[in-house]
Amino acid sequence: MDAISVIRTKRDHGELTPDQIDWVIDAYTRGEVAHEQMSSLAMAIFLNGMNRKEIARWTAAMIASGERMDFSGLPRPTADKHSTGGVGDKITLPLAPLVAACGAAVPQLSGRGLGHTGGTLDKLESIPGWRAQLSNDEMLDILREAGSVICAAGDGLAPADKKLYALRDVTGTVESIPLIASSIMSKKIAEGTGSLVLDVKVGSGAFMKNLDDARELAATMVELGTDHGVRTVALLTDMATPLGRTVGNALEVRESVEVLAGGGPEDVVELTLALAREMLDAAGLQDADPARALADGSAMDHWRRMIAAQGGDPDAPLPVAREQHTVTATATGTLTALDAYAVGLAAWRLGAGRARKEDPVQAGAGIELHARPGDRVTAGQPLLTLHTDTPEKIPYALDALTGGTVVAPADTAFTAGPVVLERIG
Amino acid sequence: MDAISVIRTKRDHGELTPDQIDWVIDAYTRGEVAHEQMSSLAMAIFLNGMNRKEIARWTAAMIASGERMDFSGLPRPTADKHSTGGVGDKITLPLAPLVAACGAAVPQLSGRGLGHTGGTLDKLESIPGWRAQLSNDEMLDILREAGSVICAAGDGLAPADKKLYALRDVTGTVESIPLIASSIMSKKIAEGTGSLVLDVKVGSGAFMKNLDDARELAATMVELGTDHGVRTVALLTDMATPLGRTVGNALEVRESVEVLAGGGPEDVVELTLALAREMLDAAGLQDADPARALADGSAMDHWRRMIAAQGGDPDAPLPVAREQHTVTATATGTLTALDAYAVGLAAWRLGAGRARKEDPVQAGAGIELHARPGDRVTAGQPLLTLHTDTPEKIPYALDALTGGTVVAPADTAFTAGPVVLERIG
Repeated sequence: MDAISVIRTKRDHGELTPDQIDWVIDAYTRGEVAHEQMSSLAMAIFLNGMNRKEIARWTAAMIASGERMDFSGLPRPTADKHSTGGVGDKITLPLAPLVAACGAAVPQLSGRGLGHTGGTLDKLESIPGWRAQLSNDEMLDILREAGSVICAAGDGLAPADKKLYALRDVTGTVESIPLIASSIMSKKIAEGTGSLVLDVKVGSGAFMKNLDDARELAATMVELGTDHGVRTVALLTDMATPLGRTVGNALEVRESVEVLAGGGPEDVVELTLALAREMLDAAGLQDADPARALADGSAMDHWRRMIAAQGGDPDAPLPVAREQHTVTATATGTLTALDAYAVGLAAWRLGAGRARKEDPVQAGAGIELHARPGDRVTAGQPLLTLHTDTPEKIPYALDALTGGTVVAPADTAFTAGPVVLERIG
Repeated sequence: MDAISVIRTKRDHGELTPDQIDWVIDAYTRGEVAHEQMSSLAMAIFLNGMNRKEIARWTAAMIASGERMDFSGLPRPTADKHSTGGVGDKITLPLAPLVAACGAAVPQLSGRGLGHTGGTLDKLESIPGWRAQLSNDEMLDILREAGSVICAAGDGLAPADKKLYALRDVTGTVESIPLIASSIMSKKIAEGTGSLVLDVKVGSGAFMKNLDDARELAATMVELGTDHGVRTVALLTDMATPLGRTVGNALEVRESVEVLAGGGPEDVVELTLALAREMLDAAGLQDADPARALADGSAMDHWRRMIAAQGGDPDAPLPVAREQHTVTATATGTLTALDAYAVGLAAWRLGAGRARKEDPVQAGAGIELHARPGDRVTAGQPLLTLHTDTPEKIPYALDALTGGTVVAPADTAFTAGPVVLERIG
């Protein structure tokens, strides 16, 4: 077996054999297959695809490259959620303690933001004292104590995926359904959850720009999970518009706490409850009532316990950016578009995101949205507030926002679409 | 400008801009673009192609990555030949001194064998004392003194191509017409020859397996040469069958000397003369008579002078392999196929070629062919003799030869095809 013959097979539109897949993943993890060979193979997969059989084997090989976690010793059923990433997607923050408050154990291994999409760990790190790195034992202790935990995946989990993900990021091979599906599912299956709800984003702010691609990705992941004994369902949800009214790390934590306090933007509450119901269903807790857990404060209690267990102070004031800049509406009418990609890119340029894995993020940077599609606006009223510690970046953020907001004449018929578009599973 | 945006352009079927091409070649040469990024781009080019405009710019950028040689100070017109590589292709050896004997200066920068194809430098190194590495000044001195020189390209010539060629070799991105054409032509144009004849091989033993691909490659290279002021023509020649009656380093030197002595196999003589006439035409020496230069010993004189000038002893006995193994015909009839790839692969396994650039080759290893397509053979007569210093490899060589020779009933109508198939330019 050698790397070139595996690359040629895929390059020439062939189907990779199970042996080829097992070998190439293992040899890449060990360093026998070089980065330049794997990136050439990744581009061949990007352009020529993999069928379901190949994706299943590829995923299994990445799982086999590392350790598998086991939560079967917990007294509660485990439930997990994964989002494919979007703009203003803070849902994990209220969702994990909410589902814990309803009786499930929620071991939420999360990631950091790259490019225009935010990362759950970056957001939580804006809470003074909170830490993302936990040992497996700490993770289990916090799960027992607080019901939920949100932390970084350990190095032992699917190391092949860690290596390949970093490689894809610099070689233009990210937006491939077989590679995205196997990357997400190898981590989630190795993590050992009993059930999994996938939030597959669709629209300008997501990796999947259209519904067909999102459906294909969702169906592929649901099949992978099911084949590995994980009860898996997927919701396709809108990412043409940012979620909620804030984009940025501390800004999104603040909004999440509002949701846990029983308030918060309608779309964030709606999606949080929809995902919570799916997770509770998949975990066999059909009788739980997540809306009540938000209303009666039990979700907030679980949040405070979880944050404190990870060293964070839930009562500490959140960081605020040094500079604010307000963008006002230039016309009177109805806001008909607020483009998720434009807002995400602008927030990234303000310092909320990172260009390279090793870059720091600004806790306070980001964007507040004062109107959402469907709202009436008046010329001169504040539309967005930009927050940043690096005001020299504001012109670049404004440039990213050009064309991202559309105000139509007030009598234009416009109805904002639903947050949840479809369910697969 | 960044590598990912260049990769994405080609990945998404776009045309690379001149700026993108200039930048990526320069940045790769400097090490700013990483190997894994260039291999991903190479695979995208392999699968999505480049148009003539992109290939021209890519070639120009590789030329610009290093120095250019200049032979305009020589009193004779320069002529050069390049073969795309085949099995038993020793033509450069008799050709260079033959064309020198006819009045041209022949600066022949050559390469080493990789995979199943042999390399001119490996062949000449079987001559005791001969050395391939020369300084530019030595090269010019030998050209003045002997009329021809065959040596390794210096490190300063198209360094981007050197780096990219080594990368393509390990990443399954070799057999791409845009990448092959730009690789060959960047070196040949940087080398500064006034005219160039391309021997584009077609058939199982060549990179181009069919005539259409070979035509496309030839036309692309002729256009590139012409655009850079090099008089360029291409012959498409057969590589379904090995050239001549020997494959292997010292074995091919022996056969080349036979040709220079006025003998040698018919097909080798025919192709040598055809290429010599094209080179002399392109160099403006239409009146020269290469057939006479073979017959009257002047080509042999130039060979001896060239070999001696590079430290070789033209009278020294050539190395012989320790073991010989004869393969006999299993039936009586007409030999209708002697597959170039099978023979090349077998010779490689016997030690004539190398798997990696840094591997040594065996000077004596290779294969003698006792019959050629069209010959009558009798069951039990010797068909091939395998030569090797590593007899444990003989079974693997025999395995490569399985199905490579076909003996049809004696009354089968069969005519061996011509060596030169087409001329382009």
